[in-house]
Amino acid sequence: MPVLKERADRVFHALGDPTRRAIVDRLSLGPMSVTRLAEPLEITVTAVVQHLQILEESGLVRTEKVGRVRTCHIESSGFSILDQWIREHRSMWERRFDRLGELLAEDEA
Amino acid sequence: MPVLKERADRVFHALGDPTRRAIVDRLSLGPMSVTRLAEPLEITVTAVVQHLQILEESGLVRTEKVGRVRTCHIESSGFSILDQWIREHRSMWERRFDRLGELLAEDEA
Repeated sequence: MPVLKERADRVFHALGDPTRRAIVDRLSLGPMSVTRLAEPLEITVTAVVQHLQILEESGLVRTEKVGRVRTCHIESSGFSILDQWIREHRSMWERRFDRLGELLAEDEA
Repeated sequence: MPVLKERADRVFHALGDPTRRAIVDRLSLGPMSVTRLAEPLEITVTAVVQHLQILEESGLVRTEKVGRVRTCHIESSGFSILDQWIREHRSMWERRFDRLGELLAEDEA
């Protein structure tokens, strides 16, 4: 749980920023170079690189450099963390509802 | 899709803040009053109320006032938006892999 919490913190921090969500949106359609990624975002390549670093640390994106070109890809592990975070929270309140159901059943018995 | 985007933007904005994630963590264990919610967070009740407003707008929390006490509950619709956002992005890159598979199969034929 503490490890999930730390990893989820990084994913939510990464996705809390609209520019980083726009990067994830575009990369979901296919890998692309940092320069191409920067074009419609109207920010400098340096700013994109900083956002990419945060996205890489959270496991949502990976980049690889071949020659002079750095290509960015979507990475599934950050999405799995999000999935796990949702499931974990859902199971907490579902357990609570189960307990409530048991108490009500006891009252009826 | 634009509606999902707007709603997902609100959820990610809400969960991008560590205090708001802490509020969601606590409410997943059970409903509680604003005053009790504020205690371990070491912030003022006014600050908690402001965070709650953002969480309510994103569909992650609902509050109800009975007499002088406002009670906060977890709300599932924000979690469903997150789920949908993950599924939508996954399906984008899965479709891409399917197309890639088709192209490779054509090459082999």
